[in-house]
Amino acid sequence: MDQEITIDVSGVSGQRGPADHKRRQQILQAADEHFRLYGYRKTTLADIAKAINLSTPYLYKFFDSKQAIGEAICSHCLGTILTEVEQSIAATRSPVEKMRRVFIGLESRGWRLLNEQRKMHDLVSASFEEGWGSLDRFKEAVFQIIRRIVVQGRESGEFERKTPLEETCRTIARMTELFFHPTLLEQAGKSQEEEAVAAANVVIRSLTA
Amino acid sequence: MDQEITIDVSGVSGQRGPADHKRRQQILQAADEHFRLYGYRKTTLADIAKAINLSTPYLYKFFDSKQAIGEAICSHCLGTILTEVEQSIAATRSPVEKMRRVFIGLESRGWRLLNEQRKMHDLVSASFEEGWGSLDRFKEAVFQIIRRIVVQGRESGEFERKTPLEETCRTIARMTELFFHPTLLEQAGKSQEEEAVAAANVVIRSLTA
Repeated sequence: MDQEITIDVSGVSGQRGPADHKRRQQILQAADEHFRLYGYRKTTLADIAKAINLSTPYLYKFFDSKQAIGEAICSHCLGTILTEVEQSIAATRSPVEKMRRVFIGLESRGWRLLNEQRKMHDLVSASFEEGWGSLDRFKEAVFQIIRRIVVQGRESGEFERKTPLEETCRTIARMTELFFHPTLLEQAGKSQEEEAVAAANVVIRSLTA
Repeated sequence: MDQEITIDVSGVSGQRGPADHKRRQQILQAADEHFRLYGYRKTTLADIAKAINLSTPYLYKFFDSKQAIGEAICSHCLGTILTEVEQSIAATRSPVEKMRRVFIGLESRGWRLLNEQRKMHDLVSASFEEGWGSLDRFKEAVFQIIRRIVVQGRESGEFERKTPLEETCRTIARMTELFFHPTLLEQAGKSQEEEAVAAANVVIRSLTA
C-alpha cells in the first residue's frame, strides 16, 4: 500500500482511542503490509507490533483485537471497490447502463482481487465467513447504490413503479453477490463477466417491465 | 437411510464393476450411515469396509476412491431434492407458479438439509468445494427444469420470446444458487424463504416483460 494513503476507520468496530492518531495509521500500514505478504490468518498482533517496534499491549490502546485491524483493512479494500463502481456509474446518465455497470464492476473488481491480490481476497473471505461489520457496511453500500439507480429510473419513467422499492432493491443487491462472493468466485475459477451481464439484463428487464 | 432404498449410481463417476451388484448397495448403505453419523471427512474407506466385514481393497473393486462413494451418496441426496421440486411444480399448470416453486423448493430443501441433516449438508458442501460431478449434474438438472418451465411459458404466450432461451435459463438457474449454495446458507444462518420469493418475482417480471 502507498504510504500516503490514510485508512479511514470511522464506523469500523473494535477501534479505541483517538481516530486520527498517527500511531493508528502506522499500525494499519504495518498490518496491511503483513496481511498482503503473509495473509490475515497467519499474521499475529505480535508480528505487527514487532514490525514497527511497538509492544503488543500498546496495540490494544487502538484496537480491540486482530479482527478490529482486519476489519479496518477490509473496509478500506471494499471501500476502494465501491469508489471504483461509483466512478464507473457516474460516467453515464442512463439508469439502465448504471445498473449494468454495478454488476460488471463488482464482478470485475472481485475477480481482480482474487487474481491479483490473493491475500486481500482471503481477508475479504474471512469477513464473509465470520460476518464482520465491514462486510455488512459493504452490502449496505451496494444496496444504497442500487436504490439510488432504481429511484432515478423510476423518476425518469424508465423503470416500473409498481413493486415495493426496498424489497426490489434488496433482491437486486442479493443477486450481485453471485459475482463478488469470495467462495463463489473461487469455485467459479474463472471470470464471469458474461454471466454478470446476463444477470444485469434479467434485472433490467424486470425493472423496465 | 431405509435399507429398502437403492442408490442409483448410473452416471456417477469413479464407479467400477457391475452397477447392480448387491455388494455395491451394501457398501453405499454402510457409507451413508457413516457419513450421517460421523461426517464424510471423518469417515475412512477402512471404516466403511470394517462395518460390513469387508477388506478395504475389496471396496476398490466397486469404487475408485472415497470421493466416488461420496459422489454416489451426494447424487442420491440431491436427486431426492430434485424429485421433491419436480413433484411440487407438477402440481400446478401455471409456468409463473412453477417458477416460484423452483425458488421456494430449492430454498426450503437446502435450509432443511442444513438444519436437519447437517452431516449430509457437509457432504453437499464438500461437493461444492471440490467441484464433484454430482454437483454438475444437479446444476444441469435445475437448469433443465427451468428451461422446461420457460419453454412452456413461451408456448402459452405468458413469457416473452425475445431473449435467448439458453442464456436466460442459465442466468435464472444461477440465481437459484443464492438459496441452496451450502456456504451461502451457512452464512445466511436463517431461512430465506421471503428472499427466494422476492428473487422469483424479479425473474417472473423479467419473463413477463
